[in-house]
Amino acid sequence: MTQPPATAPSKSATPFRRRLYTVIFEADTRAGKLFDEVLIAAILLSLAVVVLDSVEAVSARHTQTLTVLEWGFTLLFTAEYLARLWCAPNPWGYARSFFGVVDLLAISPTYLALFFPELHALIDVRVLRLIRVFRVFKLTHYLAEFTHLGKALQASVRKILVFLTVVLMVVLVMGTLMYVVEGPANGYTSIPVGVYWAITTVTTVGFGDITPKTDLGRALASVMMLMGWGVLAVPTGIVTAEMVGHRAAPGRVTTRSCTHCLAEGLAAEDRYCRHCGTALPEYLRDPGH
Amino acid sequence: MTQPPATAPSKSATPFRRRLYTVIFEADTRAGKLFDEVLIAAILLSLAVVVLDSVEAVSARHTQTLTVLEWGFTLLFTAEYLARLWCAPNPWGYARSFFGVVDLLAISPTYLALFFPELHALIDVRVLRLIRVFRVFKLTHYLAEFTHLGKALQASVRKILVFLTVVLMVVLVMGTLMYVVEGPANGYTSIPVGVYWAITTVTTVGFGDITPKTDLGRALASVMMLMGWGVLAVPTGIVTAEMVGHRAAPGRVTTRSCTHCLAEGLAAEDRYCRHCGTALPEYLRDPGH
Amino acid sequence: MTQPPATAPSKSATPFRRRLYTVIFEADTRAGKLFDEVLIAAILLSLAVVVLDSVEAVSARHTQTLTVLEWGFTLLFTAEYLARLWCAPNPWGYARSFFGVVDLLAISPTYLALFFPELHALIDVRVLRLIRVFRVFKLTHYLAEFTHLGKALQASVRKILVFLTVVLMVVLVMGTLMYVVEGPANGYTSIPVGVYWAITTVTTVGFGDITPKTDLGRALASVMMLMGWGVLAVPTGIVTAEMVGHRAAPGRVTTRSCTHCLAEGLAAEDRYCRHCGTALPEYLRDPGH
Amino acid sequence: MTQPPATAPSKSATPFRRRLYTVIFEADTRAGKLFDEVLIAAILLSLAVVVLDSVEAVSARHTQTLTVLEWGFTLLFTAEYLARLWCAPNPWGYARSFFGVVDLLAISPTYLALFFPELHALIDVRVLRLIRVFRVFKLTHYLAEFTHLGKALQASVRKILVFLTVVLMVVLVMGTLMYVVEGPANGYTSIPVGVYWAITTVTTVGFGDITPKTDLGRALASVMMLMGWGVLAVPTGIVTAEMVGHRAAPGRVTTRSCTHCLAEGLAAEDRYCRHCGTALPEYLRDPGH
Repeated sequence: MTQPPATAPSKSATPFRRRLYTVIFEADTRAGKLFDEVLIAAILLSLAVVVLDSVEAVSARHTQTLTVLEWGFTLLFTAEYLARLWCAPNPWGYARSFFGVVDLLAISPTYLALFFPELHALIDVRVLRLIRVFRVFKLTHYLAEFTHLGKALQASVRKILVFLTVVLMVVLVMGTLMYVVEGPANGYTSIPVGVYWAITTVTTVGFGDITPKTDLGRALASVMMLMGWGVLAVPTGIVTAEMVGHRAAPGRVTTRSCTHCLAEGLAAEDRYCRHCGTALPEYLRDPGH
Repeated sequence: MTQPPATAPSKSATPFRRRLYTVIFEADTRAGKLFDEVLIAAILLSLAVVVLDSVEAVSARHTQTLTVLEWGFTLLFTAEYLARLWCAPNPWGYARSFFGVVDLLAISPTYLALFFPELHALIDVRVLRLIRVFRVFKLTHYLAEFTHLGKALQASVRKILVFLTVVLMVVLVMGTLMYVVEGPANGYTSIPVGVYWAITTVTTVGFGDITPKTDLGRALASVMMLMGWGVLAVPTGIVTAEMVGHRAAPGRVTTRSCTHCLAEGLAAEDRYCRHCGTALPEYLRDPGH
Repeated sequence: MTQPPATAPSKSATPFRRRLYTVIFEADTRAGKLFDEVLIAAILLSLAVVVLDSVEAVSARHTQTLTVLEWGFTLLFTAEYLARLWCAPNPWGYARSFFGVVDLLAISPTYLALFFPELHALIDVRVLRLIRVFRVFKLTHYLAEFTHLGKALQASVRKILVFLTVVLMVVLVMGTLMYVVEGPANGYTSIPVGVYWAITTVTTVGFGDITPKTDLGRALASVMMLMGWGVLAVPTGIVTAEMVGHRAAPGRVTTRSCTHCLAEGLAAEDRYCRHCGTALPEYLRDPGH
Repeated sequence: MTQPPATAPSKSATPFRRRLYTVIFEADTRAGKLFDEVLIAAILLSLAVVVLDSVEAVSARHTQTLTVLEWGFTLLFTAEYLARLWCAPNPWGYARSFFGVVDLLAISPTYLALFFPELHALIDVRVLRLIRVFRVFKLTHYLAEFTHLGKALQASVRKILVFLTVVLMVVLVMGTLMYVVEGPANGYTSIPVGVYWAITTVTTVGFGDITPKTDLGRALASVMMLMGWGVLAVPTGIVTAEMVGHRAAPGRVTTRSCTHCLAEGLAAEDRYCRHCGTALPEYLRDPGH
């Protein structure tokens, strides 16, 4: 997916800059495709380095290799960031966009650690690693299909939010109830802990780090589990109904439009426009359908 | 949502009382909307205070702040309760309604603790906190959308109840079986404990506080898990089928038919018959739809 | 639900026996309904006694009360069993039917414990309790609605069985793989234990009594969990599709049959029988539909 | 399911070899069916032997019986493998096919252990057992119905893969976040461990071997669980929508139309047009359907 808000660089741009723009921001040329593929590979490899770096057994033995690789990826991403800034028609707009911030975050930890070595004393190394992991968001450039799936879900989001509100109410009351029934002696040391346990139970995760010990607590937990089970069906039902609807729709709707009033959404078997009454010519469909 | 059973105060009511009624019980005026928003914020904040109060680390350091806030909210809710009582056309009816009881419960714990300090010796502080948490039900005033979702589910409730009965039978027999097979030595100290474990397993929560240790017990547990997995599909199927049906219905069906060729199944917004091209009279629908 | 295979007692039966038959085996008279309600209550109460009897804290304090109640229910169910045997037109057939066996099992443990007190030395008390819990199956007499739900599921059973076979294959291979990777040192002491763990994981129960400790084991477990998650959707999909179909079907299928060839299953809008070509009279439907 | 790519042996083959081919590779003759049934039983029994062999309590007491049985099955499967090789028209093609490799793997461990006894010092016995368990794949010969189910799922696979990519991104970021928040002190020793925990949580498995201990960690975990719950609905929705679509399709559509009035949508079994009553010619379908 190319940067949507960026208009092509103005004609006054140098030919090289214009060509670079095509390579970096678009994906339809061969060079543009290659650029994308190299970048995806670099992102995945750099993520692997970050992840492996956190495993003590690996980082202790391969400190140098990992440092070299990290610097390689940082320099590559820096070059990419500068190139994007340079050839974007509106560099400041790019820098402030979601992708611009992610691209900057992707390179900053390594430079921060270099220029402010005393940072290590203040910030945990793990925080720097966390920032580096955000590189995964660079991949969202390429997830056009995800946006498609997301749109299909958007219609359900509102219903699911209402549903979540109700779940939160139930979970708050049940968590407090368990806090009263079981008490701190059995691990339910406060209402937030009770709510955490209730969420654990209703979602059927069931870690088991805190569990009811008294008979009344177990009875309440049983009710919650059975309830949560039935309730689990609701978001599934919402999303499925939405998806079945989406699937069914394309079959009913065609791109047929009235020759007179240009109204769209006519069914293939209609003989007259349902909006203006004009007799319609026969609707021809690709036999592949 | 305004109080449904309350009819507007009679004309003999003072203008101020009438205006207060509009503000408190209705939400269509600007003052009424503001009142609702302030109240929702107050409820959420007061819940936060109750929850934080139960966290020892917080309550130890900020005892005074929390007490002051608690009293502030109690006084606010008391004022609201009295105002509702005063301007409701039928005060006694309001006091006995679900919302009236919730509104009273929301303020009672603080006064109880003040007037009967010796209560603390009898009742656990946690019980008072539990009652305060019931303030969350004050929010149901504003959950009109939930009633909508609830109605869509109501049709499935009966089927789910039959289903739950069967699950309870299975769980009772399996719990007893595990109690026989594993015995008290492995944690299955009584039939209720066995049933609690069986519910834990069938709902896929799986706390792991009690687990089968013998080979036969594990084999039985495996059967239960696979069974529970297939059975998990049933409530989901029931709810989803209901929701798909609900979605499909409104779009598909009107009883509208062409005045000329009597073709049926026309959509409410069609202006010409899609079968014979006759101009259709406007389609009138019950405003209740 | 009355005993389906039992034909009404022959006319030579005494009037009393015939009346008793109506009361016990049928539910349409007032006395029959009352009999059913009393029996359901007795079954539920007797189950409560069995369950409470297994809780040591209760059974130790109320030994006598529980024994008296147990004997009361046993005598009641004995009377019921004998009455059913006496007034059934085919006593031997009833005795060998599922309900006859359940009714006998429901009373036998108490008599066994009385007549063969030395049994206690041989059989665990828990086994006797288990047999008593089978009384819950007496309730299936009254679960007509369950049969309805069951029929709707029957169509999916075959598909779910095929699906289960595949799951069992996956679980066997994955369980063995984990047994190789993790080994007895980490709790995977044999292939059956590995399979038990794999079932625990794929069904998302996740007790946590056995968990992978090595990196490779955790990676494999992660793959299994994600796989199990996607696969979880399959039985749900099967059952839901079946239920959506059932819901949709009644709208399409009518009880209309051809006046000439008596073929059934014609659609309401058909003008000629699709089996013999006879012109059909207009299909009249109840306006309630 | 017979070996699909194998064409029948050429006419120059001896009659015995041709008959053997029919028995082994086809299932429509009586001998062929018997052969299949015996082989399925042998596979299941041999799997039982492998599984029992891994249970120390059993293998210690019945070493000899298990060894004899193992050799019996190995010789049987060797005979089957050689017979398949001998009578297959293209032996080398069979040997390199999936089934050929599985059939070879099924017999190799026993011979390996015999001819290279020093292997035991190098390879764990458990690895040999693992290879033997692969015998379960010999059953795929007979799972024609599974391919049917698989095809119905294939359409959803792409969508589920996109969905899994997003889940992996979320899980990587959340796992790192927990690694930062909880730290090695609470068991989150590295990013891979954090990711393992995140997968455990999002899929609602919830082993509980690693659990958040800090308040912030528990809050994050709660958000993840609720999110995972809603998200759990997506693959279910995808698969169900696909299955509902598949169910609806076969019943609705044939391309058959009336020879007289050209009405479409007739069912394959109709004998007269349901619109004009014309007798229909027999409907011929591709036997592949």
